[in-house]
Amino acid sequence: MAKKKQFKKELADMEENFPQWYTDVISKTEMVDYSPVKGFMVIRPYGYAIWENIQSAMDKRFKETGHQNMYFPLLIPQSLLEKEAEHVEGFAPEVAWVTKGGGKELQEPLAIRPTSETIICDMYSKWLHSYRQLPFLYNQWCSVVRWEKTTRPFLRTSEFLWQEGHTLHETKEEAEEETMRMLNIYREVVENELAIPLVVGRKSEKEKFSGAEATYTIEAMMHDGQALQSGTSHYLGQNFTKAYDVTYLDRNNEQSYPFHTSWGASTRLIGGLIMVHGDENGLVLPPRIAPVQVVIIPVAAHKEGVLDKAYELKDALKGSFRVELDDSDQSPGWKFNQWEMKGVPVRVEIGPRDLEAGQAVLARRDTGEKITVDLENLEQEIGALLEEIQKNLYQKALKHRDERTSEAKNMEEFKKNLQEKPGFIKAMWCGDRACEDKIKEETGATLRAIPFEDEQEVIGDGTCVCCGKPADKMAWFARAY
Amino acid sequence: MAKKKQFKKELADMEENFPQWYTDVISKTEMVDYSPVKGFMVIRPYGYAIWENIQSAMDKRFKETGHQNMYFPLLIPQSLLEKEAEHVEGFAPEVAWVTKGGGKELQEPLAIRPTSETIICDMYSKWLHSYRQLPFLYNQWCSVVRWEKTTRPFLRTSEFLWQEGHTLHETKEEAEEETMRMLNIYREVVENELAIPLVVGRKSEKEKFSGAEATYTIEAMMHDGQALQSGTSHYLGQNFTKAYDVTYLDRNNEQSYPFHTSWGASTRLIGGLIMVHGDENGLVLPPRIAPVQVVIIPVAAHKEGVLDKAYELKDALKGSFRVELDDSDQSPGWKFNQWEMKGVPVRVEIGPRDLEAGQAVLARRDTGEKITVDLENLEQEIGALLEEIQKNLYQKALKHRDERTSEAKNMEEFKKNLQEKPGFIKAMWCGDRACEDKIKEETGATLRAIPFEDEQEVIGDGTCVCCGKPADKMAWFARAY
Repeated sequence: MAKKKQFKKELADMEENFPQWYTDVISKTEMVDYSPVKGFMVIRPYGYAIWENIQSAMDKRFKETGHQNMYFPLLIPQSLLEKEAEHVEGFAPEVAWVTKGGGKELQEPLAIRPTSETIICDMYSKWLHSYRQLPFLYNQWCSVVRWEKTTRPFLRTSEFLWQEGHTLHETKEEAEEETMRMLNIYREVVENELAIPLVVGRKSEKEKFSGAEATYTIEAMMHDGQALQSGTSHYLGQNFTKAYDVTYLDRNNEQSYPFHTSWGASTRLIGGLIMVHGDENGLVLPPRIAPVQVVIIPVAAHKEGVLDKAYELKDALKGSFRVELDDSDQSPGWKFNQWEMKGVPVRVEIGPRDLEAGQAVLARRDTGEKITVDLENLEQEIGALLEEIQKNLYQKALKHRDERTSEAKNMEEFKKNLQEKPGFIKAMWCGDRACEDKIKEETGATLRAIPFEDEQEVIGDGTCVCCGKPADKMAWFARAY
Repeated sequence: MAKKKQFKKELADMEENFPQWYTDVISKTEMVDYSPVKGFMVIRPYGYAIWENIQSAMDKRFKETGHQNMYFPLLIPQSLLEKEAEHVEGFAPEVAWVTKGGGKELQEPLAIRPTSETIICDMYSKWLHSYRQLPFLYNQWCSVVRWEKTTRPFLRTSEFLWQEGHTLHETKEEAEEETMRMLNIYREVVENELAIPLVVGRKSEKEKFSGAEATYTIEAMMHDGQALQSGTSHYLGQNFTKAYDVTYLDRNNEQSYPFHTSWGASTRLIGGLIMVHGDENGLVLPPRIAPVQVVIIPVAAHKEGVLDKAYELKDALKGSFRVELDDSDQSPGWKFNQWEMKGVPVRVEIGPRDLEAGQAVLARRDTGEKITVDLENLEQEIGALLEEIQKNLYQKALKHRDERTSEAKNMEEFKKNLQEKPGFIKAMWCGDRACEDKIKEETGATLRAIPFEDEQEVIGDGTCVCCGKPADKMAWFARAY
């Protein structure tokens, strides 16, 4: 007989070596793997199922707000990519080029899309004629390639899966409204479904999308005190519509350029999910996004009636939850470890004594707490418990984020805070690129987001944390993935 | 004011110039467009919505039969692609090569996946250890690139969207069973959801997938008498598992190679949908796959109550059907034409007189027939009508296929049939490649499928249509897209 594969809970200590803990978790849970192509990842079924849940949560909201999906070519001619100057400057260094096809050298190199504004605007210029057709509210789900030197699965890879929305509007106001609408959809999905609290705001000129007028972002705080940009929504003004000659006959019978937005979120979110909720026992998944919400584990499965009852419970629960029954011939302890590692929110244990008492034991992944419930109320109890776990994970993450947030009035304080308790630093900023650069150079922290007007605060005496000049903006800084 | 865009029903005559009719339909319905990259298509929202419906019908069935989705890299190293000799020979001429990335010449060229057996087997060799892990039942939804000289949207393009299933099994029998299971899922989806009747069977050695032991296919008959391969399921034996060194410890504690299948269906199916059901007025969509199942068109919309009633009906119907209300300021006649062109199965007309009588008119896209129904029964009547249309479209297509099917006992008859009534030719075949080649050379027809044993017939005296030698196989031949 083949020797049984031993499942070992060998994770690096997350407080001591968080990068290794991350690598251990993603490989031991079989979420993702390294591929034979450097920097490219394979998303395994357990990781992909999480992506499917994120996709479906987002796609539903996109459609509810009037967006339709479409699909654009993977490859973009070099000449087309180069029409918007700032855009190509930002993306050119990361592009992968196809130079041969069908056995021949191509006349013009084709870029694998790093993002699709260019080719989409080129087609929009063909499709758009009259204001009656506006707004254009379209999105695509696809993969993009951006050549990266240093990669980490989900967080930074040379290929990733994402969605990119591309909309056109008659007025600046409508486009700005759309930019905010989609930012709020990201915020809502990430907070409510992924249970990740966010800092929301605008990017600085330095950090914005190449070619955008303004980029808005949702930023999350990871366990180790580093931030993760988790979705961005761009107001592009008429930069691309002018460069790609997208015009239409407006209400005054004049040729006009429409106003433009784009917005994207990617498989990076899975990395965030791992690094926000995970613990020393592995993954911890919020119920709404977990591929398996409930795992049933029979105890003393050889005893009469146990396995039958476990199957019966699975059948009874599968209409309401994503449920698995582990009937493999491993020991219950081994199974407990494995499913804990996989982050399944609720474990149902059922053994001979439970059977006799008409009960089962429910174990929560987030707190480790166990409760005994009557089988009659099982479905109801699990439902309530999943809700409770979803809320608790958000609260726990919020508490962590708050603990990892501090204020700095000067550079000394900035550095001290970042060293003693890495996380977000709230600080005043004069708006000068020079100060932003200096902060990055001296601390490794970047400007993550400038909160909206109604969330602005004044830190200290209101002078720039870096140069000491009067500053009218507060910003969130952090080291980031 | 901008001049109203005139919607003109200008389709080529489908009997006289079918290719032009196809081109007209796909562009006038805004399903697809030509992109700035030669041979690559843009799938527009109306076309993509059909793909989403096909995807969801298939994905549901894949999951019900135990398959999980995953995602593999877009790029495959040249050395990896070349490990299975027959496979690379088949695909190499169609490959697009990435030779530069991140500003540098790559050490090894990377192929954009034409299909993913090679990279998936490479990873399977890492993941598979024991028979306990088998079967591997995985699938991916993605795009693939195969450089084509002559392209037509949906039917043959250098990039297309598809799914590719890749499974591993302990025994030959299990793998063969899986090959058939997936073939039957394709058959069921295409027949029941797309309302397209099929010829099902095995491909010849010449026509099979490069690297397969056996390829099974579903073949459909288009309006013009050409066949369309609409999905294939391959039994790959151990060809790839040996080439990529995929081994596991079997039940006898010995290292074994698993048995392997792959199966794929693509956006080609949309081309089939158009060419099977379309008519002189444009697209005709089967209700189960139509992005819009019901369109409500107010007549004399300026009259009191009409538009309100139309909105009310939309609200009442939207829980049960995919319904649109056309409240644009075009004339009803223009709208009728447009939505007919788009192939919407049922049109609801509501005007002042209908309002008074508490009725509405339902117009069927498939037959043009109109019926008047009480508003009280509207939902029920539409439901029944959609079912009726779904069935009728299948029956109509089946009748067409049967009319386009003939038998040939010798080459003379073969050519005569193909000229007089292009379509499927059922003929005996000795099994020799030479005869298959000669048939293609002389008639342009290829062997589409060899029916399964229980569907075999003897045509004429049972001798090969080409060489006249005894033949034990009947096969379906046709010219094909």
